[in-house]
Amino acid sequence: MTMISDTTTPRDSSSQGSSTRASFGQGRTDYESYFRKAVDRLHDERRYRVFADIERIAGRFPTANWRRPDGSTREITVWCSNDYLGMGQHPDVVSAMTKTAARCGVGAGGTRNIAGNNSPLVDLERELADLHGKEAGLVFTSGYVSNQAGISTIAKLIPNCLILSDAFNHNSMIEGVRHSGCEKRIFRHNDLAHLEELLIAAGDRPKLIAFESVYSMDGDVSDIAAICDLADTYGAMTYLDEVHAVGLYGNRGGGIAERDGVMHRVDVIEGTLAKGFGCVGGYITASTVLCDAVRSHAPGFIFTTALPPAIAAAARASVRYLKRSQVERTAHQRQAALTKVALEEAGLPVLPTETHIVPVMVGDAELCKAAADHLLEQHGIYIQPINYPTVPRGTERLRITPSPFHDAARIARLTAALTETWDTLDLPRAGTVFVEAAE
Amino acid sequence: MTMISDTTTPRDSSSQGSSTRASFGQGRTDYESYFRKAVDRLHDERRYRVFADIERIAGRFPTANWRRPDGSTREITVWCSNDYLGMGQHPDVVSAMTKTAARCGVGAGGTRNIAGNNSPLVDLERELADLHGKEAGLVFTSGYVSNQAGISTIAKLIPNCLILSDAFNHNSMIEGVRHSGCEKRIFRHNDLAHLEELLIAAGDRPKLIAFESVYSMDGDVSDIAAICDLADTYGAMTYLDEVHAVGLYGNRGGGIAERDGVMHRVDVIEGTLAKGFGCVGGYITASTVLCDAVRSHAPGFIFTTALPPAIAAAARASVRYLKRSQVERTAHQRQAALTKVALEEAGLPVLPTETHIVPVMVGDAELCKAAADHLLEQHGIYIQPINYPTVPRGTERLRITPSPFHDAARIARLTAALTETWDTLDLPRAGTVFVEAAE
Repeated sequence: MTMISDTTTPRDSSSQGSSTRASFGQGRTDYESYFRKAVDRLHDERRYRVFADIERIAGRFPTANWRRPDGSTREITVWCSNDYLGMGQHPDVVSAMTKTAARCGVGAGGTRNIAGNNSPLVDLERELADLHGKEAGLVFTSGYVSNQAGISTIAKLIPNCLILSDAFNHNSMIEGVRHSGCEKRIFRHNDLAHLEELLIAAGDRPKLIAFESVYSMDGDVSDIAAICDLADTYGAMTYLDEVHAVGLYGNRGGGIAERDGVMHRVDVIEGTLAKGFGCVGGYITASTVLCDAVRSHAPGFIFTTALPPAIAAAARASVRYLKRSQVERTAHQRQAALTKVALEEAGLPVLPTETHIVPVMVGDAELCKAAADHLLEQHGIYIQPINYPTVPRGTERLRITPSPFHDAARIARLTAALTETWDTLDLPRAGTVFVEAAE
Repeated sequence: MTMISDTTTPRDSSSQGSSTRASFGQGRTDYESYFRKAVDRLHDERRYRVFADIERIAGRFPTANWRRPDGSTREITVWCSNDYLGMGQHPDVVSAMTKTAARCGVGAGGTRNIAGNNSPLVDLERELADLHGKEAGLVFTSGYVSNQAGISTIAKLIPNCLILSDAFNHNSMIEGVRHSGCEKRIFRHNDLAHLEELLIAAGDRPKLIAFESVYSMDGDVSDIAAICDLADTYGAMTYLDEVHAVGLYGNRGGGIAERDGVMHRVDVIEGTLAKGFGCVGGYITASTVLCDAVRSHAPGFIFTTALPPAIAAAARASVRYLKRSQVERTAHQRQAALTKVALEEAGLPVLPTETHIVPVMVGDAELCKAAADHLLEQHGIYIQPINYPTVPRGTERLRITPSPFHDAARIARLTAALTETWDTLDLPRAGTVFVEAAE
């Protein structure tokens, strides 16, 4: 959110009747008070979020310019981007965008059905279907919409469908499940015994298992093969979210399912163009008829402007590049491992993960924000604090995402900066047990 | 949706157990059959949609290349784009995109909260707040999401809120209303007596009136001032969708509310960057505290990757340009009026509208599609057929959207092509009464 004037003194309740909102006031419900209370509650609970205003610098990732509220700027290092491989600045990707924009203009000009179905987008869907070894692909305006519209539409089209959903599934999947109106069971995170219990209890009605490969906040991975075994045994369909894995894992960047050799066993693979591929947008890949049914029935797909051709072209260039090149994936894993080792050796409380995600635990919302502010202001290191509700209370953390471009010198500077911050703020060290607070 | 191979023979039910879907088959629910049935139903009801695959040509709008299923291409004229002013190809807009992509790369790299809050996006929100004379602006990944997330979040934050929603509101608003979980009343389209009746019946509980300025399928306009009068009298809050008006109406492109001098009386003005402004994305503008509350509570805003800086910069360039220049708006209204006159004089059944939207009625789904196919194949004129559920059955139409670039010669060619098509297919002429079929 951006105010017209950031220097304006925050309004208090006495200034409600401003000239721009003449209709507020006497005789009328004080609607502003509801919104003010909602925001005040966040302040009280120490979970009011302030967005750092940054501008990335192509060719110098992960360097960016941080613009302070007073307008002054400072060069910083971003350590929390989900552009995991830095593909957002890759010359092939940038040039696909600029060339396509010069050739086709900026927007798509309409929905997919009405004048917006642009050729680069059609080609991108083909590329994604090929990436995951599926018959068809369907691109949405975001990964969020792909899950919300994808899961809800698929489940709605299956009579009497029961959805089995991992407890740690992303909000977009939860919204998709909710939106479907179908009955649901939540299985304990990555607990296959619990999933099996629920599958047995469900009997022979149609069932959809919705889960992720890499869970982004703890960086742990699901056992896709074992879940497919259960799906086979109990006749369930599978929907897999690979947003934190596409581009990053598998020989062609097809994700954990490709790495594990089980892509063909998963019915629907969902992914994003905004993280490993460095662009924006989301997608599902599946059978032709499933994609056709979703295309034809999902309001969030039908009634929205298509992704711009320049974005589609950039995303396709990124997907194509990462199908061939292993350099980025190798460097990514190496730099993530080196970061973990360096932070662990410094005695920082790193949550062990099997992936590229490096959570450093703090366990308190206010201290977590204080640490992030200190790192940004004192060290020019940007790591957004992760607080409730993104993670459970008591497990607040700094979530660090090294990329191939976070080299040894940057890792050393990060380690020193975190150590100084941990000393200054007296934060918990390695060995501390972080317990989820009871709600 | 894109299939890997468009030349593949469509699968019939005997080909289900394909190697890519080994898990489908014996002992398991035949999930594919549900999706096939859903698609078959659409074919049976003559509302299966085929997307024309086109590539717009910057600098030559509304010319585009149409790519046929066999891969061959043909140059066509697009007459159904929602890039109403052709701003998607404006040199300022394209160059803002290409320059920003070269400077910042493609994607934003994260959510607004986590590393994705880019300076061009912050600047765009300021620009939009100024456009509508509001304190703050908040940008979403699409207009669809801005309505869905905006309405649902605003209404949820108001205890015991009753939503009063125009019967013709867009699907994204309906989803927002539904998603809020609030009680709702639907008032007959633009029927202020009915709205007042419902306001009176509601008593003094909090109320939110959700409506549009320009309704996109019939091209009619709401009486914003009168709705604000009712809101004042009965203490309701107002939420106005201006997606088919921003950039197009008002002295600075602020929409119908600006044209009518009532922007300050509307609490929330929602708009899109994808139509008049020629880019992609959506937004709300309102008081600082309202935007802050939505920013902090809307899952569809929080858990999604931010709009790319290059898109934000392009959209801002478009908004800024249209704040100053009247040429496009004047030419747009003139060419729309000339189109209407030409088609009416040819005896075609033009639905009279007060706006730039020119619906030509057909009244039958199959004929409507046949007319569109004929126009594309025989005349190189692309107008997507508009069938149920976008419009009621019995009112199927070709929805024509002239832009400043649809000049006299193009209007003449359109008129001749429509006349020939109407003759060939024996379609209903002016004077025919089109009646909504009972469901």
